[in-house]
Amino acid sequence: MPLALIVHGGAGAIAPARFTAAQAGCAAAAQAGWDVLCAGGSALEAVTAAVVALEDNPTFNAGTGAVLTREGHAELDAGIMDGATLDVGAVAGVRRVKNPILLARQILPLPQVLLLGSGAEAVAEQHSIPLVDPQHFIEAYRRAPSEPQPDDAEPSLRVEGKHGTVGAVALDGAGHIVAAASTGGMANKPPGRVGDTPIAGAGYYAEDGVGGVSCTGQGEAFIRLVVARRVCEAIERGADAQAAADAVIAQLGARTQMEGGLIVIDAAGHIGFARNTAAMSYAFCTESMATPQAGI
Amino acid sequence: MPLALIVHGGAGAIAPARFTAAQAGCAAAAQAGWDVLCAGGSALEAVTAAVVALEDNPTFNAGTGAVLTREGHAELDAGIMDGATLDVGAVAGVRRVKNPILLARQILPLPQVLLLGSGAEAVAEQHSIPLVDPQHFIEAYRRAPSEPQPDDAEPSLRVEGKHGTVGAVALDGAGHIVAAASTGGMANKPPGRVGDTPIAGAGYYAEDGVGGVSCTGQGEAFIRLVVARRVCEAIERGADAQAAADAVIAQLGARTQMEGGLIVIDAAGHIGFARNTAAMSYAFCTESMATPQAGI
Repeated sequence: MPLALIVHGGAGAIAPARFTAAQAGCAAAAQAGWDVLCAGGSALEAVTAAVVALEDNPTFNAGTGAVLTREGHAELDAGIMDGATLDVGAVAGVRRVKNPILLARQILPLPQVLLLGSGAEAVAEQHSIPLVDPQHFIEAYRRAPSEPQPDDAEPSLRVEGKHGTVGAVALDGAGHIVAAASTGGMANKPPGRVGDTPIAGAGYYAEDGVGGVSCTGQGEAFIRLVVARRVCEAIERGADAQAAADAVIAQLGARTQMEGGLIVIDAAGHIGFARNTAAMSYAFCTESMATPQAGI
Repeated sequence: MPLALIVHGGAGAIAPARFTAAQAGCAAAAQAGWDVLCAGGSALEAVTAAVVALEDNPTFNAGTGAVLTREGHAELDAGIMDGATLDVGAVAGVRRVKNPILLARQILPLPQVLLLGSGAEAVAEQHSIPLVDPQHFIEAYRRAPSEPQPDDAEPSLRVEGKHGTVGAVALDGAGHIVAAASTGGMANKPPGRVGDTPIAGAGYYAEDGVGGVSCTGQGEAFIRLVVARRVCEAIERGADAQAAADAVIAQLGARTQMEGGLIVIDAAGHIGFARNTAAMSYAFCTESMATPQAGI
């Protein structure tokens, strides 16, 4: 089977000053996952390594780089799906987990698929998933290089251009497909709001023999259209990865008038990505390439 | 357009002593929704009326009849989707809302689609959705007619046979399809666990011109297979409501070894329902019927 891996670092109106950092961050994360695949590792291990790299890079709104809620703390969501078993692990609203993707992966084999807040953090404690003081995220947020800002007191404006979710999809040598997503959520989000990132079928989906998808953008629209599963439906009906990505992003705009982007790998190892936003940072690797190809 | 409406009262190993109450409750809820449709009301109004009737009936594990969590309180989830707009409104983990479906419907036109716990309850306060003391649910639970129980001190055993979610789907005279679900969750559920009921695409889905679906059972499996959307995919590929229901329930058993049931109406007004559990209470109305047909 051909190996393939793709990551994204969020879609939206990315500030030009961040183009270089976002592309470099995506390339480094793709390389981290690709090294795992090329060493014979599984898609599950490769996707986890790639998302950890994105979560640890303060350029992106996930893990350490998370934006803050209206109340001024970070609430992180993440999910991962194993296309071999259709197992899902996901967390929403965690405040003390350094790498939410590691906790999501820990939940993958459990009977539960989606755990919230302190219930999810209890699993992290049981399984020695690294916890941090919630201040970790607040301090990282304050340290982040500021972009030209109209008003430092307005969190929703301060992070303008820092959009979305990160994600990764991989196909390994055994034909297994895994997809994952991780986010710090909407800047200044209202209390209790959940987007698509922790929701399989909406923010990510993987099914061996079909494909894997990870999404970013206005999460509500991705839930309403069940976007990640819908991309796999298009593949089941005969589209390749790029055609499926283009078709569903066109539907997103036409049917919800909302914005976002997505990455996809089909079971044949084809790469696809599409967006109806001004930009989306991404990087991918296939066997014909010497180094990851990054773009925005 | 033909009118149609179907409700369910949960799937599982329903205790024989509850058969009559469950069927009568479903018939009454279906009649409540049908009366709305026949008076020219919308599918949205009809589904809401039917689910309110189910939530107010202590026979079912939703609204007043909710089971309790491991910590001994009720945490309610509900969701509703409008097939005309693909708008979704959903809540998870609310503890003070008498009819979670009314709160979900209030969220339907908001930018958010899924709100948790106190964030959702804040919307209820703003919009005068009836709130109750959390004790309301605990007292209703204690008042519930007891079934033969091995040990009254064990909540998970006390409610044996009291499964699942309630749900409703309707097709109105304008061709609009609406689907909804509401649940008290798993008895004795671990903290923070979210099932499929608040998740569009998993626990319910509606799309004009295709169909509407509401699900009940082991929610994790319904998330992993994106069951409600998958039923609509089968309809898009040419199946009628019953064939689509049968096909997806067969997949549920084969691919996840888990159990549940679902109800569906396709855009032509055909009714379908299927389960791989011992029983599922339901009732439906179509224009050729004088009264709702109920079964188990």
